[in-house]
Amino acid sequence: MMEQSTIKVDLLQHSNLEICAHAIRTCWQSFDKSDEGGEKDKELIHRVGNKFKHASTLEHLNYTFYIAGISRALLQELARHRMASPSVKSTRYTLKELKSEESFTDGMSMSELKTKYTIPSEVYADKHMKRAEKYLVWTGELGVDFSSVVALENLRLMLVDGIKNDRAKYCLPESYKTELTWSINARSLQNFIALRSSKSALWEIRDLARAIFDTLPSEHQYLFEEFIQEEQ
Amino acid sequence: MMEQSTIKVDLLQHSNLEICAHAIRTCWQSFDKSDEGGEKDKELIHRVGNKFKHASTLEHLNYTFYIAGISRALLQELARHRMASPSVKSTRYTLKELKSEESFTDGMSMSELKTKYTIPSEVYADKHMKRAEKYLVWTGELGVDFSSVVALENLRLMLVDGIKNDRAKYCLPESYKTELTWSINARSLQNFIALRSSKSALWEIRDLARAIFDTLPSEHQYLFEEFIQEEQ
Amino acid sequence: MMEQSTIKVDLLQHSNLEICAHAIRTCWQSFDKSDEGGEKDKELIHRVGNKFKHASTLEHLNYTFYIAGISRALLQELARHRMASPSVKSTRYTLKELKSEESFTDGMSMSELKTKYTIPSEVYADKHMKRAEKYLVWTGELGVDFSSVVALENLRLMLVDGIKNDRAKYCLPESYKTELTWSINARSLQNFIALRSSKSALWEIRDLARAIFDTLPSEHQYLFEEFIQEEQ
Amino acid sequence: MMEQSTIKVDLLQHSNLEICAHAIRTCWQSFDKSDEGGEKDKELIHRVGNKFKHASTLEHLNYTFYIAGISRALLQELARHRMASPSVKSTRYTLKELKSEESFTDGMSMSELKTKYTIPSEVYADKHMKRAEKYLVWTGELGVDFSSVVALENLRLMLVDGIKNDRAKYCLPESYKTELTWSINARSLQNFIALRSSKSALWEIRDLARAIFDTLPSEHQYLFEEFIQEEQ
Repeated sequence: MMEQSTIKVDLLQHSNLEICAHAIRTCWQSFDKSDEGGEKDKELIHRVGNKFKHASTLEHLNYTFYIAGISRALLQELARHRMASPSVKSTRYTLKELKSEESFTDGMSMSELKTKYTIPSEVYADKHMKRAEKYLVWTGELGVDFSSVVALENLRLMLVDGIKNDRAKYCLPESYKTELTWSINARSLQNFIALRSSKSALWEIRDLARAIFDTLPSEHQYLFEEFIQEEQ
Repeated sequence: MMEQSTIKVDLLQHSNLEICAHAIRTCWQSFDKSDEGGEKDKELIHRVGNKFKHASTLEHLNYTFYIAGISRALLQELARHRMASPSVKSTRYTLKELKSEESFTDGMSMSELKTKYTIPSEVYADKHMKRAEKYLVWTGELGVDFSSVVALENLRLMLVDGIKNDRAKYCLPESYKTELTWSINARSLQNFIALRSSKSALWEIRDLARAIFDTLPSEHQYLFEEFIQEEQ
Repeated sequence: MMEQSTIKVDLLQHSNLEICAHAIRTCWQSFDKSDEGGEKDKELIHRVGNKFKHASTLEHLNYTFYIAGISRALLQELARHRMASPSVKSTRYTLKELKSEESFTDGMSMSELKTKYTIPSEVYADKHMKRAEKYLVWTGELGVDFSSVVALENLRLMLVDGIKNDRAKYCLPESYKTELTWSINARSLQNFIALRSSKSALWEIRDLARAIFDTLPSEHQYLFEEFIQEEQ
Repeated sequence: MMEQSTIKVDLLQHSNLEICAHAIRTCWQSFDKSDEGGEKDKELIHRVGNKFKHASTLEHLNYTFYIAGISRALLQELARHRMASPSVKSTRYTLKELKSEESFTDGMSMSELKTKYTIPSEVYADKHMKRAEKYLVWTGELGVDFSSVVALENLRLMLVDGIKNDRAKYCLPESYKTELTWSINARSLQNFIALRSSKSALWEIRDLARAIFDTLPSEHQYLFEEFIQEEQ
């Protein structure tokens, strides 16, 4: 299978744990007990934010990620997490990049494409597929991925024909890649990881949940570990 | 052009204006001045909520809509309105409905389809197109709409081949129709109407903004009128 | 002890369970399985919203309460629940009601007041205390409640002296009674009940959490029961 | 008048403008036009976030303030800004600090206190008043401030008598000083400044709005200037 390979997550900025500890210590005015983001502060944050469920204290921790290589199918789900701020690559503004591309199918029909290949690994190495990979997330299901390539090519033809982005984008396949700047606080991110690391979640968003966790500063990860759903 | 025709908005529930007036009168304890949702109350709501910008008072007015006949392209934008609660028809759970359909193209390639038609109005009356219309939002751009039909047919074939929804959905065109139950308060709905009735907004979401406004109880519409962006 | 007696909660409006079930059925398009808010729908809401933790579906259930007889000490905590809409009796606009009152102490100093009483139950029946009860929440601690009466009387004198509300309100005791219209959805209300029914919560807000639960439509209470923290 | 003097606002952390510009450039994929938070980026943020009202892009800018020297009267209003995260000094946990204080009135009744002073400026220099200033926000109205001192002394006596904080706090005057760690994004902060710099706002929160603006990084202030309500 080819999935998982293209998600790329960068952490653009994050708050320091010390800020969160300081916020919690505001309640007790116990600032003198701080060890400036060290083990005592970390234990305090976990105890108050996670164990005592005073989750509002975790809202002082903000993260901004740059997420690339995900599909618009995944974006549909990501946008449901409403305690977060997404700024997304706009198809309306950026589809024109497709115009300058050569054909992704060389005029071949999907049935022709299918018969040309027998071994999947060979298929994805094909030059058409390699070029299409810049725009599409592979599912690893050959038929689905071919259909996406055909859709991509049809979309390209529309743009070459001068159709405006606002109409052309309607034949975009949901495998189309997008990227976004995404800001979220620790409380909401815990909820995201809990729901999206579940085995009942869509495969691609599970990959994203894992990739986001892996991108967190290592000293922050302990706040999220218990929210990751175990594999069976 | 064929767009606009399929959006359908139903109002499932709404708060009464009297509730909002009661909330405002709480601040002054001026309940005895109420006329039970009549002109005095309406004037009060407009003055405090809109003119004085004490917009939190408008949050007591909640609306639940059932929205059908919109594309998943539009859904991408709708979900960005985060002060609202969407429950959306899931492609993961419902794509199987396509399985029992007959071919949308009878095996014709897109180029064949194109040459068969010369007059657009004739095209959309074609039996294939009529059947596809159940699943797709037309843009009125023939090439785009044909491409969507081809994508729909490819998707159908994947499902018939036994591909799981979680993979098959990746070749779904964004013109694919969806529907949702959507709850939103008056404050957030004002923001939605202001941003989405703008002529710089996507054509389909402008239609939706208008359809939602038209579906509001007539005695509530006055709270939203000033947020509709005028056509030039 | 005298606390608990004055909280009064009225339910001004609420959504029907059927709306929530309809929202959930949107995802599966399983409307035909509904029993219009009956046992099947109720079981579905509980399973999806509570057990599966798809809590966003519970946001379609909105409640508007009128809450009276609570202190401004409690209001400080209530306002921290930010996924809710409060419209509160304003001290800035309403303090003038105190002006027309007679003295709450007849010029007695607090030490005099204290020596007059020996049995608490007698104290609270005193005419001064009865009149002050309109404005103050009793804690059942005689010294505290006397101090509040003295503060109330001082406040009254300031108003009679012509001091503006915006300055006079600074000597208001936090036991001062307030009331509000409060709208909240079921998801946020579950969080409120979980945090505020805990034995570590302030006594008065625990009373309020219980009073709110008791005011819910009986057929809605099952969604909240598991969130009530057990007494030890 | 004595007000305004004690509010103290520190900025504990903030996002860089570059992050916000990056988020906006995500939509157009125009990263190469950035000048890394310079004039071009600043102009872009203002144009998209303020002028075009795509305010969600401003949510990537987060600020955490430490606010001290404000009254609990002000806190009641501050907490109504629900798109923000407050962690507040808890009276329940911290009132014990009063126990170790000496009397604020030396047993004098308020009437005695009043007659001792004739010139306000002299009053506030009194040693009792100086000690009380640690705990109370002055309004500049002598009667109100005296009443607060009396209330403070009564509260102190309750604590010395062994009354638990959860009851004792009910006779706390709203002039009682508090402090908090407060995180808020630029979009919500614009709303705060617009509403709270109005001349119809409470005097103390107007001072706070100004103090917060003054504490912002100077290169961020331009995003908020147009939201400050002009004095008449």
